[in-house]
Amino acid sequence: MKLIENWFSERYSDNLQLSFRVKDQLLSLKTDFQRIDVFDTYDFGKLLSIDGTVQLTEKDEFVYHEMISRVPYNMMKRKPETVLIIGGGDGGAAGEFIKLGVKKIVNVEIDGQVVEVSRKFFPELYSSFSNPSVELLIDDGIKFMKKNKGTFDLIVVDSTDPVGPAEGLFNIDFYKDAKGALKDDGLIVTQSGSPFYQPKGLSLAASGMKSVFKNIKVYTAFIPTYPSGFWSFTMGSDAEIKPYFHNVSPGKYFNKGILDGASLLPEFVKELI
Amino acid sequence: MKLIENWFSERYSDNLQLSFRVKDQLLSLKTDFQRIDVFDTYDFGKLLSIDGTVQLTEKDEFVYHEMISRVPYNMMKRKPETVLIIGGGDGGAAGEFIKLGVKKIVNVEIDGQVVEVSRKFFPELYSSFSNPSVELLIDDGIKFMKKNKGTFDLIVVDSTDPVGPAEGLFNIDFYKDAKGALKDDGLIVTQSGSPFYQPKGLSLAASGMKSVFKNIKVYTAFIPTYPSGFWSFTMGSDAEIKPYFHNVSPGKYFNKGILDGASLLPEFVKELI
Repeated sequence: MKLIENWFSERYSDNLQLSFRVKDQLLSLKTDFQRIDVFDTYDFGKLLSIDGTVQLTEKDEFVYHEMISRVPYNMMKRKPETVLIIGGGDGGAAGEFIKLGVKKIVNVEIDGQVVEVSRKFFPELYSSFSNPSVELLIDDGIKFMKKNKGTFDLIVVDSTDPVGPAEGLFNIDFYKDAKGALKDDGLIVTQSGSPFYQPKGLSLAASGMKSVFKNIKVYTAFIPTYPSGFWSFTMGSDAEIKPYFHNVSPGKYFNKGILDGASLLPEFVKELI
Repeated sequence: MKLIENWFSERYSDNLQLSFRVKDQLLSLKTDFQRIDVFDTYDFGKLLSIDGTVQLTEKDEFVYHEMISRVPYNMMKRKPETVLIIGGGDGGAAGEFIKLGVKKIVNVEIDGQVVEVSRKFFPELYSSFSNPSVELLIDDGIKFMKKNKGTFDLIVVDSTDPVGPAEGLFNIDFYKDAKGALKDDGLIVTQSGSPFYQPKGLSLAASGMKSVFKNIKVYTAFIPTYPSGFWSFTMGSDAEIKPYFHNVSPGKYFNKGILDGASLLPEFVKELI
């Protein structure tokens, strides 16, 4: 009788952690940018962790990926035709824009090893990169934006949290570069952390975007394997940001009601913005 | 240097747990109905656990208590004047109805020890019971409803999950008794668990209410210390259930937008109902 249990724990603070029982650790890798681990969990299928924080699991990745793509897609007056994804090396966000019929998706991931890990362990997500609409570049997103002015309708910042390699993706200079790479009526969206455990992350993203764009809008989604289960996304644009309902066919999480309601925020979240 | 750390863990399944680092365990008690524990945690203040599951913490109880009270209060055409709370022995739900100005609140808790624990450890919540609008009875809620026909505008089922003493609060017979104790246009609301980890709890509540009431409506809230951080509530009534905006002054979580949006459900939740 085997009495040893294997658990992977993400520490949300010194005083709180969520633990997944795992069948096995499938990979542990130190890249030039970060540490990557893959676990085979009992309840959530395969789990990708970067620097000890859960990035995605097979069971609930649909929430994050649907919400970082379909909400901004439907909040722009003109259907976005050119999308830049910064980060997103797993392929999940690109996959959603393929489903939405976007024909030009440029995915700039700084760490080629993330793509390699996705190829091996998350082939369904990785398969996005073989779609003819998707161009994958292993490059620094900030440098890429500086070289590609006025090019994109929509920029999606699908990054890790504002510590480590993604640090430069949460400040005013970054948003200025993003504005430069966007067309005049373009929109940027970024994941902006847990309003409950990381209120400063959301405040930072919101205030940074406010100083660069005429309009911002925050929305939230329920993601069980992220800290507190509650996650925020922040959008900025010089055009009006509101539901235009280009394509609200239901996913597993997203639907028309979610588009209507995702920006209706709890009072303590409104106070952070 | 003290190297031993004290943690309280709630197991969501055999394979997943959330752990709170605790300064101390303040109480452990076996009553006629259940096991009650109180911990002094680092991040969430005092935490009340029943049968190993988190019932409330000082830091986030506001979400559950605002949402189980202010949403149904505002979803009835006629402002509710008589409210029956079944469970709720901590006093938190009663406190919200006091704030809403309800003059007749009957709180029927089956386990007097829960009230006693609240008096000692959660005095701010317990203080509801000294308000002249509140009548506290230590009694079986089902028996109480059978004896009080056609009496209440609103019944709030603020119970533990459908295992243990609350088992009888999640079936058709219970909803029939509740309908009997309600006035013709009355409404019942119950917490109905995590749609992600306990989908059967929500399906059960929804189908049970559907077979007894003309209308049902499910809404959700983000509660960080409950399993998956995402919680459902289910309402049933023969009258129409929709926002009437009697009192939408903001709490810490609730506000007018939340009332508008709380019933806009993710696709996988809609499929459970």
